[in-house]
Amino acid sequence: MSERVITVGLCGFGVVGQGVFNHLQKRENDLSDQLGARVKVTRIAVRDTSKKRDFDFDAAMLTTDPLSIATDPAVDVVCELMGGTTLAKEVTLAALKAGKIVVSANKALICDHGEALFAAAKEGNGQLLFEASVAGGIPVIKAIKESLVVNRFNSIYGILNGTSNYILTRMTNEGAGYQEILAEAKALGYAEADESFDVDGIDAAHKAVVLAYLAYGRWVPYNDLLVQGIAEVTQADIAFAKENGYAIKLLAVIDVAHASGKLYISILPTLVSKKYVLGSVDGVFNAVSVHGDVVGETVYIGPGAGRDATASAVISDIVDAAKLIVNGGAGRFIDPAPRGGAKIELAEPEEIESRYYVRLQVVDKPGVMAEVTSLLAKHDVSLASVTQKEVEEDATSATLIVTTHTTTEQAILDAVKALEASSCVEGKPFTMPVSSFEG
Amino acid sequence: MSERVITVGLCGFGVVGQGVFNHLQKRENDLSDQLGARVKVTRIAVRDTSKKRDFDFDAAMLTTDPLSIATDPAVDVVCELMGGTTLAKEVTLAALKAGKIVVSANKALICDHGEALFAAAKEGNGQLLFEASVAGGIPVIKAIKESLVVNRFNSIYGILNGTSNYILTRMTNEGAGYQEILAEAKALGYAEADESFDVDGIDAAHKAVVLAYLAYGRWVPYNDLLVQGIAEVTQADIAFAKENGYAIKLLAVIDVAHASGKLYISILPTLVSKKYVLGSVDGVFNAVSVHGDVVGETVYIGPGAGRDATASAVISDIVDAAKLIVNGGAGRFIDPAPRGGAKIELAEPEEIESRYYVRLQVVDKPGVMAEVTSLLAKHDVSLASVTQKEVEEDATSATLIVTTHTTTEQAILDAVKALEASSCVEGKPFTMPVSSFEG
Ligand SMILES: NC(=O)c1ccc[n+]([C@@H]2O[C@H](COP(=O)([O-])OP(=O)(O)OC[C@H]3O[C@@H](n4cnc5c(N)ncnc54)[C@H](OP(=O)(O)O)[C@@H]3O)[C@@H](O)[C@H]2O)c1
Ligand SMILES: NC(=O)c1ccc[n+]([C@@H]2O[C@H](COP(=O)([O-])OP(=O)(O)OC[C@H]3O[C@@H](n4cnc5c(N)ncnc54)[C@H](OP(=O)(O)O)[C@@H]3O)[C@@H](O)[C@H]2O)c1
Repeated sequence: MSERVITVGLCGFGVVGQGVFNHLQKRENDLSDQLGARVKVTRIAVRDTSKKRDFDFDAAMLTTDPLSIATDPAVDVVCELMGGTTLAKEVTLAALKAGKIVVSANKALICDHGEALFAAAKEGNGQLLFEASVAGGIPVIKAIKESLVVNRFNSIYGILNGTSNYILTRMTNEGAGYQEILAEAKALGYAEADESFDVDGIDAAHKAVVLAYLAYGRWVPYNDLLVQGIAEVTQADIAFAKENGYAIKLLAVIDVAHASGKLYISILPTLVSKKYVLGSVDGVFNAVSVHGDVVGETVYIGPGAGRDATASAVISDIVDAAKLIVNGGAGRFIDPAPRGGAKIELAEPEEIESRYYVRLQVVDKPGVMAEVTSLLAKHDVSLASVTQKEVEEDATSATLIVTTHTTTEQAILDAVKALEASSCVEGKPFTMPVSSFEG
Repeated sequence: MSERVITVGLCGFGVVGQGVFNHLQKRENDLSDQLGARVKVTRIAVRDTSKKRDFDFDAAMLTTDPLSIATDPAVDVVCELMGGTTLAKEVTLAALKAGKIVVSANKALICDHGEALFAAAKEGNGQLLFEASVAGGIPVIKAIKESLVVNRFNSIYGILNGTSNYILTRMTNEGAGYQEILAEAKALGYAEADESFDVDGIDAAHKAVVLAYLAYGRWVPYNDLLVQGIAEVTQADIAFAKENGYAIKLLAVIDVAHASGKLYISILPTLVSKKYVLGSVDGVFNAVSVHGDVVGETVYIGPGAGRDATASAVISDIVDAAKLIVNGGAGRFIDPAPRGGAKIELAEPEEIESRYYVRLQVVDKPGVMAEVTSLLAKHDVSLASVTQKEVEEDATSATLIVTTHTTTEQAILDAVKALEASSCVEGKPFTMPVSSFEG
């Protein structure tokens, strides 16, 4: 009997697409030994068919029409590896409606249109697999979806953007400023020409929305997230962190507010204790800490991007798809987030509690400290520490750093607004949460 | 239409079995929403039916004959949660031969009889799922088997025994001796009355054999492992570790020898850099670092034992089993280790390379240092560092600590034998590898 072939269509043949092609081909025999079926790429969609590619392949597979792959009855598994949210959405919807298994690495797409995509999958009896969309090669999606299936979640913390973590790590190790390290990161290929998706927290926010859906069954609109990037982090902040046993991480927090039981997501530069495992995950690595109510805390660390790491994750989805097809379970939609949490409410800033760090530039004159502390007190923000380094004789302003006891996000927003309006304060104060995790 | 019921038989209703029962019941509705089928425990085997249990259940489910569950046509999934390797083997084999899906948390069983069990599974078209057998609640089995399916593995490092890690952590933090901390660990329930399985490395070795099979497709006989426990670790070793930026971990190493490409497994107290993530995994936590040739390094950290954490892993297997049954893939054996490595050879001690730490008690007389260093040199062991702390005026012996450059396991064994025979050395030298990972 001739071996069954599972056909894969790649929509996109760039960094990730070519990695998937290469490694699928290299391990074709291993996979066929396991599956009793041969997984083969049979169609590839690109924009430019004349572009030189990194691997040899049969040019007859090429098309410039990814939609034709999405609806091709001869394609079993459709991989959406183009990026973007317009054509990618059309392609993904068309394939899901056709009852296909779609594998996607596209966190922007899933964040923006996840609700519609999973509805289409359910209706069309398709499946949407998306391991590579969060934390690259780290299998955290499968962990939450399958390994921790009996858990409900107290919180998820993540370092979800490798570029930001790389920049913060180098700023910490080298004492250099943000702009300087960013320029070097670009030159070395660790940051894109347009860095904003990565350093402004947008990419991490997309991933956090996906994780929150998995854990709580609710799509949180992007606009309900608190998102701030790393561009305002200075050496003053890093020096404070080092002196006090912290690292600064762009931390995604998906958490349930203590008192109200409501959900919130934030992506913010955060002081994380060096004693806590996430405080020591450096460079381009990603990490996710998942707090399940049955298992406790599990932590996953690894490469968050890159051709090979991402291909490893995409291929795990393709092989899962192949198993479903071989076993006959392909036409049955499985809800990846069945925990009945669709009705969890979103927390307001007055319900979100944390300790905070505030850095201010204050004019160097008598009474400033009294003014600042009384403004904070007025907003019910009580101080845990105050640091003002000695200033030069002729300086007219000084950097004042305070950390607070636990207060609300709303109180900090209000206090900072009041500080900004004060004549004692120059410019805009910089704030970030202080994570309570000690490890 | 009435909902389909997936029936689960629990052979064993102790620490783990009762945890599985409890959490399956609590999340029965969540799971049924996802699966479109209801997962229900229908039979339970114990030794003593009159024992009081921690949860309410229908006593009519009880039997003292686990074999009757293994072959009961009305049971879909058989969980072997008794422990031991005799009756557990019979039960597991009988169920697999009957084409059932067996879920096991029993690393001793899988280590000793894995080859026969998987052969029986293949022959009977059964499945053996074993997530809980290694690293408790950490989903590392699924990660290697499914998420990293396209990878071949360069190495796996693991902290696989929580009791040993707890004792080493407390010895490090408190400066107390092994016996004292062991006694306290027993009193607090962190160590069993008979501690030997845990502290002698046996439990970690069982788990390492399971991981090695998954990664390399070969069952390594227990007797081919290098296994040493933590009982000989002293405060002298811990002081050295601290002063030099290391932690001492009972580290399982599953590695391919550099030159020969042959496989070896060792479970040894090991100096691990504090900068490397495994060097900071403390207390009862387990951790596994997996080096895949496509993805790179991924690290998994979490609780390695305990009722709830282990139940979380067992239930993930039960739910996978339920999906297979619902999808129709239950009767198709899937090889968990298909990477064609069954023929990988095992390395000999002369093929295993590492840096080493050697602690000796030497008599306090002239010429001792020359004798020791020349004995090491004779065995081609070259020194990286030598430390001898100042001794009391009236002491007759001193503790000498040396670290070596990279050498072979065989050279160290021979050198230590020669040192032990020397009149300059009192007692048996203590050695451990120095891990090359820096993080
Ligand atoms: N790169 C990573 O490390 C990484 C990691 C995780 C997730 N992801 C996600 O993976 C996806 C792909 O990323 P990538 O880095 O591989 O992107 P990329 O290198 O830019 O590749 C995109 C591919 O899609 C093709 N494409 C784009 N628009 C198309 C259109 N209109 N019609 C046909 N083909 C079109 C391109 O064709 P041409 O080659 O002809 O231009 C190219 O082959 C994105 O969603 C990204 O967020 C990437
Ligand atoms: N405990 C953990 O944290 C943990 C973690 C990972 C893996 N595991 C593994 O899980 C397995 C179970 O461990 P456990 O801690 O749950 O053990 P346990 O508390 O000692 O429970 C063993 C259960 O098996 C039953 N049993 C033993 N022999 C039997 C026989 N001949 N006939 C019928 N029933 C029998 C016992 O019945 P009675 O109750 O009537 O005595 C008891 O209910 C072991 O393989 C262990 O290595 C345990």
